[in-house]
Amino acid sequence: MKDSHILVVGAGLCGSLLALRLAQHGYQVSLFEKRKDLRKADISAGRSINLAFSDRGLKGIKRVGLEKKVEELCIPMHGRMLHDKKGTTKLSPYSGRQNEYINSISRSGLNALLLYEIEKHENVRIQFEASCQHVDIENNSAVFVNDTTKEQITINADYVIGTDGAGSVVRQAMMKIRALRFSFSQNFLTHGYKELSILPDENGTHQMEKGALHIWPRGENMLIALPNLDGSFTVTLFLAYEGGTYNFNNLTNPAIVEEYFKSDYKDAYALMPHLKDEFFENPTASLGTIRCTPWTHKNTLLMGDAAHAIVPFYGQGMNASFEDVAVFDDILSEEEFDLDKTLKRFSKERKLDADGIADLALDNFHEMKAHTAQDLFLKKRKLELELEEHFPKDYLSKYSLVTFNEDIGYHEAKVKGRAQDKVILNLFQEGKLTDEQTLEEKLQIIDKYTGLYLDKDILIL
Amino acid sequence: MKDSHILVVGAGLCGSLLALRLAQHGYQVSLFEKRKDLRKADISAGRSINLAFSDRGLKGIKRVGLEKKVEELCIPMHGRMLHDKKGTTKLSPYSGRQNEYINSISRSGLNALLLYEIEKHENVRIQFEASCQHVDIENNSAVFVNDTTKEQITINADYVIGTDGAGSVVRQAMMKIRALRFSFSQNFLTHGYKELSILPDENGTHQMEKGALHIWPRGENMLIALPNLDGSFTVTLFLAYEGGTYNFNNLTNPAIVEEYFKSDYKDAYALMPHLKDEFFENPTASLGTIRCTPWTHKNTLLMGDAAHAIVPFYGQGMNASFEDVAVFDDILSEEEFDLDKTLKRFSKERKLDADGIADLALDNFHEMKAHTAQDLFLKKRKLELELEEHFPKDYLSKYSLVTFNEDIGYHEAKVKGRAQDKVILNLFQEGKLTDEQTLEEKLQIIDKYTGLYLDKDILIL
Repeated sequence: MKDSHILVVGAGLCGSLLALRLAQHGYQVSLFEKRKDLRKADISAGRSINLAFSDRGLKGIKRVGLEKKVEELCIPMHGRMLHDKKGTTKLSPYSGRQNEYINSISRSGLNALLLYEIEKHENVRIQFEASCQHVDIENNSAVFVNDTTKEQITINADYVIGTDGAGSVVRQAMMKIRALRFSFSQNFLTHGYKELSILPDENGTHQMEKGALHIWPRGENMLIALPNLDGSFTVTLFLAYEGGTYNFNNLTNPAIVEEYFKSDYKDAYALMPHLKDEFFENPTASLGTIRCTPWTHKNTLLMGDAAHAIVPFYGQGMNASFEDVAVFDDILSEEEFDLDKTLKRFSKERKLDADGIADLALDNFHEMKAHTAQDLFLKKRKLELELEEHFPKDYLSKYSLVTFNEDIGYHEAKVKGRAQDKVILNLFQEGKLTDEQTLEEKLQIIDKYTGLYLDKDILIL
Repeated sequence: MKDSHILVVGAGLCGSLLALRLAQHGYQVSLFEKRKDLRKADISAGRSINLAFSDRGLKGIKRVGLEKKVEELCIPMHGRMLHDKKGTTKLSPYSGRQNEYINSISRSGLNALLLYEIEKHENVRIQFEASCQHVDIENNSAVFVNDTTKEQITINADYVIGTDGAGSVVRQAMMKIRALRFSFSQNFLTHGYKELSILPDENGTHQMEKGALHIWPRGENMLIALPNLDGSFTVTLFLAYEGGTYNFNNLTNPAIVEEYFKSDYKDAYALMPHLKDEFFENPTASLGTIRCTPWTHKNTLLMGDAAHAIVPFYGQGMNASFEDVAVFDDILSEEEFDLDKTLKRFSKERKLDADGIADLALDNFHEMKAHTAQDLFLKKRKLELELEEHFPKDYLSKYSLVTFNEDIGYHEAKVKGRAQDKVILNLFQEGKLTDEQTLEEKLQIIDKYTGLYLDKDILIL
C-alpha cells in the first residue's frame, strides 16, 4: 500500500510537512503549489510574516525529525508585553512554569526548511506555479495550470489531499457534490488587519524587548508585534472596519493615520518612521473562520486551513495544521498504512478539536484586545501564575492547556479552560477568593467549583 | 420614489407575497420565476405538499388583505396526535388557550392564490420559466434564461430582491464580492426526509383525525402526517442516512421498507397501500440550515429562505418568510418609502430573529422525534397546558411564544422559552414542583427561577 501515489495540493506549511512525512514513509508524492518557489522569489520584496510556534507545532516537526533545525529559526517569547497609552510596559508571563514559552518564527524560513528536506527524497515531485483549476473527486485527479505559460497538466493519483488553505479549491469541489451534504461555514469578524514594521536600530538589534509578544490593547482594537531574527518586528494592527473614532474605512489619508497612532500607540509610533508609507502600501486583510464537514469523500481529504481556517488570536493556526499531520500520522500507523481507513478516521476524529481551537481563537480575540488590560483579568492572571509556579503539576491555565499541553486535545482544553476561567472570575466577583486564604486553599476552591460547573450546565436549584 | 422598478427573483411564497405588497404600494415590479406556472402545471403529477400556517404567517397575509381567502384553504390542527408503536394515540394540545391552534395548508394552493391576486395589478410583470443565471449587483441587473427555448433576457431594475430560496443565485452573487466579507453557513442534519401519503377513504374523507398534526416519534427517527382538504394526508418520514437498524442507506428494497413500517409505524402502514411504490418513486431530500450576513449590498437584498433557510421542525419556515414581508413593510412605511434605508435596516434588524427561529427549529428536531414521547416531557407539557388554561395572560409556553405571539420576536421567544423549559425540567428533576402546591404557587416558582436564570448565565456561587 505504500506504493500509492498521493497528490498533495498546496505546498504551504501544512502541505509541505505532510508531503515530507509521506515521503519518509515511502509513498510516491506529488506536491503541487500555485505560487512561485518562495526560496527563489525575491524575499526582500515580500514581507517577512512571522508566526507563533508552540508545542503542538513542535509535535508535528518532531515527527519528521527537524526539531533541532527549527529551533535555530525560533525566538522565544516568554509573555505578553503590555503597552499602555503612555508607553508604560508590563510583562504578563504566559505561564508560571519556567519551561513554557512560545516562539516567533518566520513563515517563509520554516516553509523553505521543509521544502529543502522534501527535495532529499526521490519519491517526491514538487511543482510550483501550478494553480489547481479543478479536482475530479470521483477519479482522484486534478487539473493544474501555469498562470504565466498557460500550460496545463492533469495529475491522476490514488489519493488527493487538499492542503490549499482557506480558499481551498479542493474544498470547493467537495462542496459541489450534492449527495455529500457538505456542511460549510465562513464567518468574518468586524475587524481586519494590516501588517507594518519596526526596523532594527543602526546596530541591527531589536528596538524593544525581543523575548516577548508585544500588545497594545485598546478595548475595541489593538496593535501587536512579534520579533524577527534580523532585529526587526512585524507589527500587526487589528482594527474594526467601521465604528469608533478610527477604523479602516476612515483611515484614508496619512494625516489621520498619524493622528491615530500618535494618540493610541505613541511608543510604537516613535519606532515606525515608515508607518505612513507602509499603511497605504500594505493590504488590509480580513479575518475569517472556516468550518466544514465531512473532510473526506472517496479518496480525497482536506487538511489544515482548507478544513479549518481560524482567526490568529491564539497563535494556533500553524500549530493546529502541524498537529493535523501528527494526528494523521498516528492513525496511519495504527491502521497499518491503510489510507482508506486513515482518511475516514482522521476526518471524524480530528473535527471536534478543530472546532475547539476555532472557538478558542475567537475567545482570545476579545481577551487580547480588551481584557488583557482590565484589573480583574490581571488579578486572575496573577493568581494563575502563582498557582502554576507553586503547583506546577496541579494547575494548568486555559492558555497552558491550549498552548503547552499537546497531549490534551483542543476540545478538552476548551471545555476545561473556559469553565476554569468563568469560575475564577465569578469567585473574585463574589468575594470568595480572599487574602486570608492560602494558595492551596484557593486551588481547592477553584478545582471544586470547576468540577461542579463541568458536571452540570446549570446549578441554580 | 414609488416609481422605482423592483426586480423580485423567485415567485415562491415569499417572493409572491412581497411582490403583491410592493404592487399594492404602486411600485413597478418584475417577478421572475425559474419554474413553470404552478397554476398550469399538472398538479396531480406533482405532490401536494402542505405546510403549517400560523400567526406570524397570518400577520404577513393580513398585510395584503387576504386573510379571509387564506382561511378557506386552512385545516385547523389543535395539537400533536402522538402514535405509539402499538397504534395507541394521545392528543397533546398546542396550547391551553382555546383560540391557539395551527393550520395545515397546501403550498401550491396558497402560492396560486397570491399569484392570482398579483395579476390584478397592472404594475407587475410575472415571468415564469425564467431561470436566473447571473446577478450584477453593481448595476441592479440580472440575466435569465428559459431552459427550454434557451431564450435569454436581461432585466435592469432599480432594486433587486432575491427570494429565490435555499439555493439562491442572488446570494451566490453576493458571496463572490470579496470586499463584502459575506459570512455564510450551510449545515445539514444527519437525517433526510421523504414524502409519502395516506389517501382518503372511499367516501373521500380523512382516515385519521383531521384536526391534529400526527406524530409517530421513535427516538432517532419519526413519521409525521398533515391533513389535506381532499381527505388525504401528506406523510413525511424523517430518517437518518446511516446508523440504527433502519436508515435511508439501507432501505433499498420494498421488503425492507415494509418490514420497517410494520415494525415502527404499524397503524400508519395499514393506511398506506401505495407505500412501497411511493417510497422508491419519491425523492429523499436533505435537511439544512442556511445563515448569512449581510443580507444587503448596494441595491440588492435577500429575503426568505434565500437569507435564512431553516429545518421544518417548528413549522415556521413559511411563517418566518411571511413575517419578513411584514417587517420589511413596517420599515418601508417608517422610512417613508426610502428603499435604500429600508434595505439596510431590514438586513440589520431582522437577522437576530432569523437566527432565533433557525435555532428553535433545530431544538424542535430533537424534541419531536424523541422528547414528545418521554414521561418528563409529557409531565411538563401537562403542567404548561394547565398554566395556560388557568392563567392565560400570565403563562406562555415556548411553543406559544414562538407560534402564537407574533408581537414577540423569535429571538426573545427563544431566550425566554429555552430558559423556561430548562427551569421546569430542572424543577421537576429536583423535586421542587410537588402535588401539594397550588397551580399559582407553581407558576410563581417557575417565574422566579426563569427570571434568575435569565439574569445571569450561571448562578453557582
